[in-house]
This record gives sequence, C-alpha cells and structure tokens, in this order.
Amino acid sequence: MSGLEIERKFLVHKCDGAYREMAYASSRIKQGYICSGRGRTVRVRIRGGQGFITIKGPSGNGGMTRYEFEKEITLDEAKHLMQLCEPGLIDKTRYLVKSGKHIFEVDEFYGDNEGLVMAEVELESEDEPYEKPCFIGEEVTGDRRFYNSYLRQMPFAVWRDTLSEEYR
Amino acid sequence: MSGLEIERKFLVHKCDGAYREMAYASSRIKQGYICSGRGRTVRVRIRGGQGFITIKGPSGNGGMTRYEFEKEITLDEAKHLMQLCEPGLIDKTRYLVKSGKHIFEVDEFYGDNEGLVMAEVELESEDEPYEKPCFIGEEVTGDRRFYNSYLRQMPFAVWRDTLSEEYR
Repeated sequence: MSGLEIERKFLVHKCDGAYREMAYASSRIKQGYICSGRGRTVRVRIRGGQGFITIKGPSGNGGMTRYEFEKEITLDEAKHLMQLCEPGLIDKTRYLVKSGKHIFEVDEFYGDNEGLVMAEVELESEDEPYEKPCFIGEEVTGDRRFYNSYLRQMPFAVWRDTLSEEYR
Repeated sequence: MSGLEIERKFLVHKCDGAYREMAYASSRIKQGYICSGRGRTVRVRIRGGQGFITIKGPSGNGGMTRYEFEKEITLDEAKHLMQLCEPGLIDKTRYLVKSGKHIFEVDEFYGDNEGLVMAEVELESEDEPYEKPCFIGEEVTGDRRFYNSYLRQMPFAVWRDTLSEEYR
C-alpha cells in the first residue's frame, strides 16, 4: 500500500477497557526507526510474524495528510533491519474496532510508554464523517508528542503528568 | 537481495574510456537518499525504468563489509519517494565489465560529480582473489569521500583537485 494517508488520532478513555471487548482482532507490534528526522521516517515493523518496511513523508494539513509507502519484507529481513534502528523500540498491542463504515485502530503501549492508549481512524477525505466509538476521547491529530517516532525519543513516562487523569 | 555485502572500490584510469568498450551492459541510474546519517542509509533508485529501495547499515572491516537490504518497488513509488529525499540527487551511468569470474561495476558520474569514475567489485569473502581489468586504479575501499551518500553532500567538483591528475 502506498499513497496519501488521511488519519485522525485520539486519546482513549481507558477506564473500562471497552476497546478490548469491542475489538474483532488484535496483534502485538514491535517497531523501530532507521531514521526519524526532518519529517521523514523509515520504520521497520514486526507484526504477527510478518515484517514490514514503511516510509512516511512530512505531514501536511495539521498532521492529517501524509505520503506513506509500505512493503512487506521477510521476518528475517525485519530482524536484521531492527538491529540497524535508532535506540528505543516501540512495543504495543493494536486492537481493531469497527465503527460504522470505519475501523479504529487502538494502540495500547508497553515499556516506557506504558499507560498510553491512542486510537486512529483512516479516512477517504479530510472532512469525511465518522462514528466515534464510546472510548474515543480528545483529538490529538498533528500533536507531535503522540507520533510513534517521537515516543521513541520522548516516552510517555516522561510527560504523562501533563495529560488529564483519565488519559494517564 | 538482502545480506552482508563485501565490496572493494577503486578509482578508474579514464584516459582511454576503455571501460565503455569493455562493458557488456550499461544503464543510467538516478538516486537520492531518504536519510544518510550515522552510517545507515536509505536509498531510492531509478534504473532502467525500475524502482528500488535499499537500506545499508554501518560499514565493518575498513568499509569492506556492510549489511544491505534491497527491494524492487514500482516506478511510481520510486518517483514519489524521490520527492522525499534529502537535497541533491546522484546521476550516473553504470557500465558492467566482466573480469574472470567477477563483474566490475564502473560508475561514470554527471552533474556536480562530473569527472569522477569509480569501479566496484562484489566478493564472496574479504580475501577472495580477483583479476583487475586494465582501467582499475588506486583502491579507495572505506574512503568515505567516495560513498554516494557523501558525494551528494560534498560533490566531486569541490575536492577533485586533491586527487592526482589521472583521476580528475
């Protein structure tokens, strides 16, 4: 899959873990970054025994639109490339939740980002309407603190107290 | 192709352009770098209408050994990714010359690197013997000035006078 990606990102009300029960699928994801500077990121991901390499360009329109290129690679290649990554890996479980015509991806983080739960939805156009599942909280689209490439350098543990209590 | 790459690199005696006549194939190559810092490079290449993405790790053993990952991508993807590259593209013609059991890749550069001609040979092991074609000059394996990712930032035009006259 390659093309322009339109995404909105949200914090998640964690109190009841509703997203876990509403999910139709989940998978553990580990990922690292070969590079993540100047708005371009080159990511290596292992997900359910499959490897992927993903390149994203700089964000446009308040962080909503971004060119994304993705190719599947072998698990062996992914493991080799993971060793080339900048220090700090991202480790999370991704839950997929259907809502109307859309799929919300809910990421529950571990390690230095323990406690952080975020959701993303991919849209066809920037003003496309969508149904918000009950667990969706404050929108954080375009807020760099919540980029995975940023969380690697500045993990949630360091700044979680700046968020209101329901999101910590 | 992915794996450990063992390569030796040489300057080329250009006086008679012998490599052009000895070549069994040639192709024009344009390439850019998504990132090229800290020994890791992510390269986008267009060669004969095909696109490639290549990731190389840091060099070992005096620049002779390097992990390399390469995947073919569509021309359209390569053109998009080229737009994300750091400023400065590399433009060259690559000539392939057989010598004994090996193939020497001879790169003739254009643009800001006009005048530079280099050759590389890939080996199975670091001490594998090989036959040097007549045009092969001084070895420059591991000399960072001759890395394509470095030539992009510090082109040959800037420092060609530091080489002896036969290589300018």
